[in-house]
Amino acid sequence: MPWIRSRAKMGSIAVMGTLDSKGEEHLFLREAVAGRGMPVLTINIGTLGPPAFPPDLDLGVRGQMAREDAVEKVLQRAKAEVSLLQKSSEISGLISCGGGTGTHMATTVMRQLPIGFPKVMVSTVASRDLSSIVSTSDITMIHSVADLIGVNSVTGRILDQAAAAVCAMSKARWSPQPRRATIAMTSFGFVTEAAQRIRRLLEQRGYEVVAFHANGTGGRAMEEMAIGGHFHGILDLALHELADDMMGGYCRGAGQVRLFSPPDKALPRLVIPGGLDCAVLEFTKDSVPERYLGRKLFFYDFRSAIGLEPGESARLGQDLARRLNMYRGPVEILIPSLGWSEADAPEMPLYDPESREALLAALEKGLVGGRRVRRVQAHINEERFALEAVSLMEGLLQGGASA
Amino acid sequence: MPWIRSRAKMGSIAVMGTLDSKGEEHLFLREAVAGRGMPVLTINIGTLGPPAFPPDLDLGVRGQMAREDAVEKVLQRAKAEVSLLQKSSEISGLISCGGGTGTHMATTVMRQLPIGFPKVMVSTVASRDLSSIVSTSDITMIHSVADLIGVNSVTGRILDQAAAAVCAMSKARWSPQPRRATIAMTSFGFVTEAAQRIRRLLEQRGYEVVAFHANGTGGRAMEEMAIGGHFHGILDLALHELADDMMGGYCRGAGQVRLFSPPDKALPRLVIPGGLDCAVLEFTKDSVPERYLGRKLFFYDFRSAIGLEPGESARLGQDLARRLNMYRGPVEILIPSLGWSEADAPEMPLYDPESREALLAALEKGLVGGRRVRRVQAHINEERFALEAVSLMEGLLQGGASA
Repeated sequence: MPWIRSRAKMGSIAVMGTLDSKGEEHLFLREAVAGRGMPVLTINIGTLGPPAFPPDLDLGVRGQMAREDAVEKVLQRAKAEVSLLQKSSEISGLISCGGGTGTHMATTVMRQLPIGFPKVMVSTVASRDLSSIVSTSDITMIHSVADLIGVNSVTGRILDQAAAAVCAMSKARWSPQPRRATIAMTSFGFVTEAAQRIRRLLEQRGYEVVAFHANGTGGRAMEEMAIGGHFHGILDLALHELADDMMGGYCRGAGQVRLFSPPDKALPRLVIPGGLDCAVLEFTKDSVPERYLGRKLFFYDFRSAIGLEPGESARLGQDLARRLNMYRGPVEILIPSLGWSEADAPEMPLYDPESREALLAALEKGLVGGRRVRRVQAHINEERFALEAVSLMEGLLQGGASA
Repeated sequence: MPWIRSRAKMGSIAVMGTLDSKGEEHLFLREAVAGRGMPVLTINIGTLGPPAFPPDLDLGVRGQMAREDAVEKVLQRAKAEVSLLQKSSEISGLISCGGGTGTHMATTVMRQLPIGFPKVMVSTVASRDLSSIVSTSDITMIHSVADLIGVNSVTGRILDQAAAAVCAMSKARWSPQPRRATIAMTSFGFVTEAAQRIRRLLEQRGYEVVAFHANGTGGRAMEEMAIGGHFHGILDLALHELADDMMGGYCRGAGQVRLFSPPDKALPRLVIPGGLDCAVLEFTKDSVPERYLGRKLFFYDFRSAIGLEPGESARLGQDLARRLNMYRGPVEILIPSLGWSEADAPEMPLYDPESREALLAALEKGLVGGRRVRRVQAHINEERFALEAVSLMEGLLQGGASA
């Protein structure tokens, strides 16, 4: 059926799914939402057959296309249409239910919607690995426990609660106290003390701090939100993900979006090499792989940190220079000369000025455009380093920094 | 502080967490729930220090204990207390937020609560592998995206929505139409047709059918819910998980709870060897492991099925007999003589009467207590097999079966 845009009431809850194979379940969701007094917009993304009931928006394809192509085509359409509906405030929440395929399809659409827009997925596969399903988004996942084959005493109750949840979430209206600016900050286990000091100082000065754990997902989430315009500046305290990406470590996966420049604005960024002294790997003192026996080692929990060799550090320095050279906004680079993590301090196992200098030499050699490296005679976790970092960050935000 | 039970208002929302390290965030949740007109009960499960605010129920431990022991002790207390609160209807929902440790602790308490009782977890680790976090429960998982370090424009909004969700879920009141009885049924890709036929026939006769995908988690969830008293009978169409447990297949993990007898009741069960002809493994026609090259093979998607050798089938028969001999309730065993899955049919790649007979011989030899095996001259996916299965199931439910 043709899509008549005027039919969508402002603030509707979108009930989206494969209405061919999961028609009964989505019809139930529609009634559960409507029964709570919310306007509903039903969207079909099925590829197997005609929808079980007439949807408000039919994005399904049927016909001779190969299954994969059909899924791809529906997803392209759905991403575009649902984005428009969200941007125009015609929908105030999105709910879906499904098995493996339905979950893949619906969450692909959900992941591109902004953080904070309510998105609820009832899924048979919600107790598996969700790294590619939830990824860096805030999708609410509800495990259906039983198969989504009909509405029964188990699935009906769970679907009804999910409908209640998305309706209530769409009405949540909390907003933060206005602050001078919102600063995103990366953190990491071995620089926790620095993160706490810096956060406290920034908050005392009237800034809001949003922290991200530099564990592969966290850094990626921060960069994506920066591109989405959530922040006034970035205090990039923990670059550790670059080391783990290079060494295949525990916090790998941040990828090329890390230190990426939002294309449409000059976002101030203070860069500090927290945790760039080591890679974190999954072994304990009883299971050190042979190839790391000659390294500096720091045992933590089920993970351990290895020191980096000067050659590896130099490669990291080149990598960092390359990324910063592409960064459009104002940047400061601040180096704590006495150590870059809890493990990289005098008397601690990973203390290694030589390797750090190899990184800095490569970084300084690689930087173009007049960007330079500032050094502070302090360890990263010391108060005077935090004070220096906060002062530089304020300068960047006030536009007084080298750009 | 001492716990005064009379302080809990009926139907409160429990706000539970490590109130030492995550005090600010749980205080925010408390206000967000209370602001929606719901009574709140705060519960501390911290092990690091004193709670940031006085909780209604302080289950935290502090002192000289080793960290792991403290966590274990708190969890024992919390599981007992929260169960009591739920059983006495003093709480109508549970919400928590946390990082790795907080998520582990809170979800350990949540997992023992019944399906359908609202449980919401805001977590920094909600986009990872949730197989041991959500497992067979219906925990609602919400990814915090940013670190839960303070309440800011990102975490505040997500926490507020989570509070809205748990309040609304606790008020959801849907209940199913009354039916003659509720029957749990296992299903599996290669016996989908049988599952559809049987479900339709049972529903026509006034029964409710709750389906579980026999993929390791599904069978386990069904057995746990059976122990919890959710069902009047089990139509165990897909025993495939036993084969994958033995062969290390894709649907492994159901474990010893599979075919387990609820200790306090005689639950009727019809047992059918759906999918017990094969193991499902992760390879395609282009990547068949050498050790399976001599087998009967059926290529599906990213997974393929291998036929079982008679010796393996005999071991499965022994395993099945052992489990059924321990089962206390009335049991019928129904065998479709012309094939046990879509792939095990004449002209299909896994058709193998010899291997099936090896299983049946071992099963019949192993069964004690007068239980016997019935055979139908039909393939599992045929209508006449479905009719026979439904008729036997009805007999079991009406108490007319051999017990």
